[in-house]
Amino acid sequence: MNEFGTRYRIGIFGTSHGPCVGAKIEGCPAGSRISEALIQAELDRRSPGKGAISTPRMERDKLEIISGLRKGKATGGPIVGLVRNVDTDSSAYDAFLRVPRPGHADYPATVKYGGHHDHRGGGQFSGRMTAGLVIGGAIARQVLEKKGVSLLAQTVQIGKVVLKKDVPFSIADKFVRASAVGCADRATAEQMKEEIAKAHEERDSVGGVIKCSVIGLPVGVGEPFFGSIESLLSAMMFSIPGVKGVEFGSGFKCASMRGSAHNDQYIIRNGKTVTKTNNAGGILGGLSNGMPVEFRIAFKPTSSIARPQMSVDIVDRKPVELEIKGRHDPCIVPRAVPVVENSAAAVILDLMLQGGFA
Amino acid sequence: MNEFGTRYRIGIFGTSHGPCVGAKIEGCPAGSRISEALIQAELDRRSPGKGAISTPRMERDKLEIISGLRKGKATGGPIVGLVRNVDTDSSAYDAFLRVPRPGHADYPATVKYGGHHDHRGGGQFSGRMTAGLVIGGAIARQVLEKKGVSLLAQTVQIGKVVLKKDVPFSIADKFVRASAVGCADRATAEQMKEEIAKAHEERDSVGGVIKCSVIGLPVGVGEPFFGSIESLLSAMMFSIPGVKGVEFGSGFKCASMRGSAHNDQYIIRNGKTVTKTNNAGGILGGLSNGMPVEFRIAFKPTSSIARPQMSVDIVDRKPVELEIKGRHDPCIVPRAVPVVENSAAAVILDLMLQGGFA
Amino acid sequence: MNEFGTRYRIGIFGTSHGPCVGAKIEGCPAGSRISEALIQAELDRRSPGKGAISTPRMERDKLEIISGLRKGKATGGPIVGLVRNVDTDSSAYDAFLRVPRPGHADYPATVKYGGHHDHRGGGQFSGRMTAGLVIGGAIARQVLEKKGVSLLAQTVQIGKVVLKKDVPFSIADKFVRASAVGCADRATAEQMKEEIAKAHEERDSVGGVIKCSVIGLPVGVGEPFFGSIESLLSAMMFSIPGVKGVEFGSGFKCASMRGSAHNDQYIIRNGKTVTKTNNAGGILGGLSNGMPVEFRIAFKPTSSIARPQMSVDIVDRKPVELEIKGRHDPCIVPRAVPVVENSAAAVILDLMLQGGFA
Amino acid sequence: MNEFGTRYRIGIFGTSHGPCVGAKIEGCPAGSRISEALIQAELDRRSPGKGAISTPRMERDKLEIISGLRKGKATGGPIVGLVRNVDTDSSAYDAFLRVPRPGHADYPATVKYGGHHDHRGGGQFSGRMTAGLVIGGAIARQVLEKKGVSLLAQTVQIGKVVLKKDVPFSIADKFVRASAVGCADRATAEQMKEEIAKAHEERDSVGGVIKCSVIGLPVGVGEPFFGSIESLLSAMMFSIPGVKGVEFGSGFKCASMRGSAHNDQYIIRNGKTVTKTNNAGGILGGLSNGMPVEFRIAFKPTSSIARPQMSVDIVDRKPVELEIKGRHDPCIVPRAVPVVENSAAAVILDLMLQGGFA
Repeated sequence: MNEFGTRYRIGIFGTSHGPCVGAKIEGCPAGSRISEALIQAELDRRSPGKGAISTPRMERDKLEIISGLRKGKATGGPIVGLVRNVDTDSSAYDAFLRVPRPGHADYPATVKYGGHHDHRGGGQFSGRMTAGLVIGGAIARQVLEKKGVSLLAQTVQIGKVVLKKDVPFSIADKFVRASAVGCADRATAEQMKEEIAKAHEERDSVGGVIKCSVIGLPVGVGEPFFGSIESLLSAMMFSIPGVKGVEFGSGFKCASMRGSAHNDQYIIRNGKTVTKTNNAGGILGGLSNGMPVEFRIAFKPTSSIARPQMSVDIVDRKPVELEIKGRHDPCIVPRAVPVVENSAAAVILDLMLQGGFA
Repeated sequence: MNEFGTRYRIGIFGTSHGPCVGAKIEGCPAGSRISEALIQAELDRRSPGKGAISTPRMERDKLEIISGLRKGKATGGPIVGLVRNVDTDSSAYDAFLRVPRPGHADYPATVKYGGHHDHRGGGQFSGRMTAGLVIGGAIARQVLEKKGVSLLAQTVQIGKVVLKKDVPFSIADKFVRASAVGCADRATAEQMKEEIAKAHEERDSVGGVIKCSVIGLPVGVGEPFFGSIESLLSAMMFSIPGVKGVEFGSGFKCASMRGSAHNDQYIIRNGKTVTKTNNAGGILGGLSNGMPVEFRIAFKPTSSIARPQMSVDIVDRKPVELEIKGRHDPCIVPRAVPVVENSAAAVILDLMLQGGFA
Repeated sequence: MNEFGTRYRIGIFGTSHGPCVGAKIEGCPAGSRISEALIQAELDRRSPGKGAISTPRMERDKLEIISGLRKGKATGGPIVGLVRNVDTDSSAYDAFLRVPRPGHADYPATVKYGGHHDHRGGGQFSGRMTAGLVIGGAIARQVLEKKGVSLLAQTVQIGKVVLKKDVPFSIADKFVRASAVGCADRATAEQMKEEIAKAHEERDSVGGVIKCSVIGLPVGVGEPFFGSIESLLSAMMFSIPGVKGVEFGSGFKCASMRGSAHNDQYIIRNGKTVTKTNNAGGILGGLSNGMPVEFRIAFKPTSSIARPQMSVDIVDRKPVELEIKGRHDPCIVPRAVPVVENSAAAVILDLMLQGGFA
Repeated sequence: MNEFGTRYRIGIFGTSHGPCVGAKIEGCPAGSRISEALIQAELDRRSPGKGAISTPRMERDKLEIISGLRKGKATGGPIVGLVRNVDTDSSAYDAFLRVPRPGHADYPATVKYGGHHDHRGGGQFSGRMTAGLVIGGAIARQVLEKKGVSLLAQTVQIGKVVLKKDVPFSIADKFVRASAVGCADRATAEQMKEEIAKAHEERDSVGGVIKCSVIGLPVGVGEPFFGSIESLLSAMMFSIPGVKGVEFGSGFKCASMRGSAHNDQYIIRNGKTVTKTNNAGGILGGLSNGMPVEFRIAFKPTSSIARPQMSVDIVDRKPVELEIKGRHDPCIVPRAVPVVENSAAAVILDLMLQGGFA
């Protein structure tokens, strides 16, 4: 149903080459101070041309709020925000109904909808749909900030380049926003840019990993089982196009660990009950335990590449060599950073509202 | 709300040491042939004493259906199945309200519910709650089998022991069920048993990885974005206690891959459009593409270990050495295999019903 | 999906002649004091043999709680309560698959489920299913009482006998429970009994009207449009078998009124803003305005009557005279009083939780 | 959450004097032919100036579709339609935050939202919000028409004027649309106009009753209990501002009827199983029985009247005489006819999709 959330709910709409993309947001408490400029700033982070590879200056995604805000505050009713699609060229896409692009939704979508879907620009499967997530998330985080909850997503891997050090949240927060690749460490960021540039030169693309942290959560946010923080966050993350893996805390490494090493033992620090390590990623039994919530998301390399690829004509059922024309973004990870950060905010706010924390 | 699913919905209830654990299941089509013996068989796979470490013979979880089946068929109304809790000893658990066990939900649950929750045996955070998932899933898979859809979960890693070979689905299916650790390769299974035995001897526990495959799905199952196969399957998987990571197809490896290698190129095989590789794990744009759906789930080492651990008295706010008495399962992975397999079936059936495929 | 509610949710299960009928209840706040005896008392009010016509003493519906309560308090997890079906005779019901009873769900249910439903005793369409509503509602009202919210349902019409006077809530509350027909006025109650007795003698049945009042609601409970108090209460009321009409405040009389007479003008009484009249039935824009919430529910005469009726054999497609054997309840209204009262409580608690009032 | 429906879901947004009002619609099957002109036609029926009392020609509500339709067909994604608010004068409304208008939502809304809601023109409680219902419903009925299902709403009472005769569906359908008051009988329509004119002259308003019929429904649409046709239709109807009562078939009259008269006996007519009478209003056990679904909705007299009324200043807590300036619609019933008709269509389509009928 294109909707996510129970108490704070984002419903996205539009298609990549239709009139607009946007979101209808339910559950923002009446009277919350919401700055449209802050939403716009997050949309700008997501914009093309903000990545490592400079592209010709494009029209930015201009936010339009048509419901739910008045005099800078939420009215308590649904908020609807959208960005118009401009400058779209849909001419190439009809061909993909017959010859699907490898790695894209073309093939199953055409089978599913019998060709009735809006396939132009990837339609409702396009990464462009994440603009709606950013709008909904950028509103949520403004509510969260008032509650002392902050989020930070950062690029920790691009291709073979892996961030080695752990930059503290408060420092990372500044550098990530200034970095073209969303990496707080300058030297690593340079290597990442090179990795992307190299892939681009070779008419190829490259994947990466984003790490996201949430600090300031009270103890007990989340619900047992299906309402666990991990369940809801992973469901949101896996709805972002290109995500292939999500792990919390120790993640896949936990498989080869012993319980004695993995269990985060409790200690008192500054009068507060905390854990010595954070293999749990801040979550026990699906609930926040007061430590930072930490998770990592793997993004595949961009599916659209300039190199010719093999596909099939699904009508004639014969092999076809396919070449995808146009500008290609060799790595979606930098632009995905604000998407992860903001959409995670929406999930966290939903869980806080569910638990009576907001 | 302890419920999962839209068209096929499982609601779990009960607590580990309350009268019972069970599930209320909505959406099973009227007239579906459902064998209680097959549900019981799946519950038996999940039972304690079925793992690598033989434990004293315990009462098995005996299925009781109190609604929704009649003469071996679904009536179209809600199905309610449960297993009684017998032979529970809750005496130890009161202490954990003050001195929480590392790695368990004790601490955040006590804060969240102000001590009003049923904390005995982990209460509604207990792994025992997965019996409800198995009941709901074992019903779903009987419906799926009629539609030609099959699932298989298998253990591919225990601690440092990793399954190297890829056993074909049809063969694995038989051996996995016969294996105490849920691994189709006999030699690897032996090593896994040793790994578990070693951890047990050292009064410790060990984690692992389960791989799950779904075959026979028609093209186009799944919904865009929030209804993607990955979103719903990961949400279900992360509700299983102890899961720290979920990845589809190439998973986290995709981050260091190039698009030209990652994109699964289309070919014609036996007159059908398929992909040459399956890095996508059978899913594009959240929809099934006709290839096997494949995903991997990382389980942390069991939190309960016999070794003393450091914790704190959350009332007195001082450090306490904690020793957890009783029998400990050094590895939950073998028993998690049927949980993964069956609960995934529930998600797949839900998606098929949503898309009009069942 | 056999479930009702957002924050306080009742899911009913079972069938009239299956093993049991019951409810799974979500959202009861952890730590709420819940008396099983009070739930049992409400079930007893609903029991057969409690109406105006004395029937041979039957086994009472004995409450069994299998999840969610511990030491007299809600644990915060799902509550599951049920009553076993005993002493059922299903022999007559197979015939109704071919020759549907007028006024019952037999015909559309058989078409809908292809005969796979549990049709015995009306199956999941039976009035017996309301036992689950009573269980869920009797829990809700215990939570409401602590918040100062009380409900009262009373019979105001049986057949041609109409209650003329308005008995104050506090007085009615006592007399209604003592009355076999659920009417607070003794003289009218006697006439109602006669009306029922007369219908019974004539091998016929008779309908009636129940009025329900909710007092103590804070101002602002309810949500705009689809979440209005009227929308949710009417949806619940119309799920009770036999209900043909629901009206709030002035109800259908409003159609012939002028705005100047219908508008409830505001006044100050005892320092509080109240309205002089209550044509609104305590609700404006879907929200409570602080006045008593008042609504009326019309029940049709019981469909099962001893007289022969015309039906058709839906296989042979020919007319058949049908005689329904067995004991018939000539008027369901008295037993519906606790169903209305308790199920309304569930809706009100749901709305209060939604609005942050509980 | 401002949303209604399970498989066909309408979410309304906007406020009376905000930028727009509209709806986000989920579940319209991909490929459905949807004419924007037909939606516009329904919006025009709802427009001010279409009633019995001619008002100065106003800007009509011009439909704008920003998502979900392409080349006259549904894409399968969310449909978003809206109408801009033009020519609004909000100057009067601030006063109502302190001195609430009798019969309006002013008082409880101000208490509920602490004054943060958009109160101008009634905000999200305004009758203007029903434009979103009309958009969503007008789409639904185009899908229904293809399935042979038709709806008709008509005015059967205005004040003291009651329609006596029963005009057949096919005839009524034409005359209702041509009638300024939505009544198929010309003579009665004239009396209704006079009734409205008289109320208007006396600076007052008047209520009425709308009857709605649904024909062509297959047997078995609807779900047991909470998913009954009555439950969902009444929930939708009671979300329309001004509705005080809803009844199906015999409605409140059933209370004084005997079962032998009320039960609709089955007969064979033209080879089909039908009932001789239709006291059930086409619904048994919540399911359609193949007869026309018939229900009646009572509307209170418009709350805004030109006469001075008593209210209170809720800050100073003292009585205030209130005069509401501006143009007043003396009867909302004529404009409510298309709202009832179209919003009912949305509910019916939802139920058909739930049951696999569409």
